[in-house]
Amino acid sequence: MYQTGQELRQAARRGEFTAHTSGLARGFVQANLVVLPFSWAYDFLLFAQRNPKPCPVLEVGDPGDPHTRALAEHADVRTDVPLYRIYESGELVDERKEITAIWRDDFVFFLLGCSFTFEQALLDAGLTLRHREEGRNVPMYRTNIPCRGAGRFQPSPMVVSMRPYLPGDAIKAVELTREFPMVHGSPVHLGDPRRIGIEDIEKPDWGDKVSIRPGEIPVFWACGVTPQLAALVSEPPIMITHAPGHMFVGDRRNYEFKL
Amino acid sequence: MYQTGQELRQAARRGEFTAHTSGLARGFVQANLVVLPFSWAYDFLLFAQRNPKPCPVLEVGDPGDPHTRALAEHADVRTDVPLYRIYESGELVDERKEITAIWRDDFVFFLLGCSFTFEQALLDAGLTLRHREEGRNVPMYRTNIPCRGAGRFQPSPMVVSMRPYLPGDAIKAVELTREFPMVHGSPVHLGDPRRIGIEDIEKPDWGDKVSIRPGEIPVFWACGVTPQLAALVSEPPIMITHAPGHMFVGDRRNYEFKL
Repeated sequence: MYQTGQELRQAARRGEFTAHTSGLARGFVQANLVVLPFSWAYDFLLFAQRNPKPCPVLEVGDPGDPHTRALAEHADVRTDVPLYRIYESGELVDERKEITAIWRDDFVFFLLGCSFTFEQALLDAGLTLRHREEGRNVPMYRTNIPCRGAGRFQPSPMVVSMRPYLPGDAIKAVELTREFPMVHGSPVHLGDPRRIGIEDIEKPDWGDKVSIRPGEIPVFWACGVTPQLAALVSEPPIMITHAPGHMFVGDRRNYEFKL
Repeated sequence: MYQTGQELRQAARRGEFTAHTSGLARGFVQANLVVLPFSWAYDFLLFAQRNPKPCPVLEVGDPGDPHTRALAEHADVRTDVPLYRIYESGELVDERKEITAIWRDDFVFFLLGCSFTFEQALLDAGLTLRHREEGRNVPMYRTNIPCRGAGRFQPSPMVVSMRPYLPGDAIKAVELTREFPMVHGSPVHLGDPRRIGIEDIEKPDWGDKVSIRPGEIPVFWACGVTPQLAALVSEPPIMITHAPGHMFVGDRRNYEFKL
C-alpha cells in the first residue's frame, strides 16, 4: 500500500488509484480540494474566513497555477487527487480521474483541512474509528446548522462527519481534536442527530453508513464537504472539488497541524 | 474610565478618546484595523491566510459597509477607533481621529486579532505586563522574519510585540498564549533579539520602550502592525489602519477567543 502522500499522489496521477483515502498514507496530511474561477475566489476565501470550522484554509494557489507549495512540494492538483467532481451552476455534472483538460488560466485552487488528519491522534490515543474497522468511508450528513454567507456564497447548511463513541471516549475525542483547529478542531455536536437536522443517522448524504453499538453516541465534526453544498446552493458557473472522502494527500505530517 | 468596549468606542466616536487602548475596557476583545479598496481585498485576505500568526482575521466587512457584526453590534469602523493612519502608495500621509469624510463605496474593512486580548489571560495567571506597570504602550519591532507574499502584497517583514519575563514565566506565557491562536497565539521568538534582526531592544519601531530587569528575557509575539509594514512595502494606492496600540475595541469577551 501507499506509505507516503507522494506515493499515493503518483498512483492517483497514473489513474491507478481512484478510491477513498481514509487510513491511507498513514501520518500524512489529507485535504479537501475546491477549484474556482478567480472571479469567485474572494467570495470563497471570505466564506471560509466566516466559517472556519468547516472551511479551514491550508493553502491557496495563485491564479492559473495548479502546483502546491505549502502542503506538498510541487504536487499537481489537476491529477493528484484520486477522484474529482465537476459542478456547473450548482449541478453535479461529472466525476472524473483528472482535470488537466478542463483546467483554465483563471482557476484558483483551495486546499482545506480534513478530519482524516486528526484521526491519527484518535487512534494514537487508543480510540477506535468505526468506519476504518468496517472498511468504509466516513459517514457525512447535511445539517440544519447554517453557514454564514459571503458575497455570492449564500448561507448554506454545514456538512458534518460522524464517528460513534462511548461517552468517555467522546469526551477524550473532544479533548484530542480541539488541539487540531486547522483540521476542523473539536466537534460541533454530540448525541441526538435530530438536534442538528439529521433525520436518519442510517442514511448518510455522503460516504458510508457505519454501525453504532449499544451505549455509543454519535459525535459530529464540521466537514470539508460543506463547500460542495455551498456550490449547489450558490451556483458558481463552474466549481471543481474532490469526490467526498477521496482527498488530496500532502507531504506534511498530521502532527504538524497540532496546535 | 471605560468599563466596556461600547463605552470606549463611543468616546472615540465623539473624538474625546484618542489614546492607546492597552489595559482599557478590560475583558473586551481588541483588534487591528485595515481598510483597503475592494480591488486589493483578495490579495490582503490571501496575505492574511498565508501569514496567520501576525494576521489572524476576525471579521471582514462587505464592500462599502463600515459596520461590524461579528466583533461588535453595529460599530462604525470610520469613527470608533481612537486614532487612524492613512497610507498612500506606501507612505504615511496622515493621522486622524475619524475617516468618515474619506470613506468610499469600495472600501472593505478587516479586523485582525490583537495581543491585548491574551494579555488578560497572562494577568489572570499572575504574570506581569511591564508596559502596563510602566503606563506605556507595548513595544513593537520590525524583524527579519519574512512574511509570505500574496498577489501584490510582497514578502514584507513580520512585526512583533515584546514582553519581558523571567524564564519560568516565559514558559508559562508560551503555555497560556498558545490557547489563543486567533490573537497571535504562542510567541515567535524568545531571548536574543538579534536572532530576529532587532539590533537595539531599547529602540522599538512602534510603541514605547519598557524596562527589562536582571534575569528577564524578552519574549516576542507576532503583531497586527505587520500589515502596516506590508503597506509601506507593497504600496496600495490607499490603505487606512488604526495607529499602533490604538485599537478597535469590540463587544465580545477576550475569553471567547480562547481555544
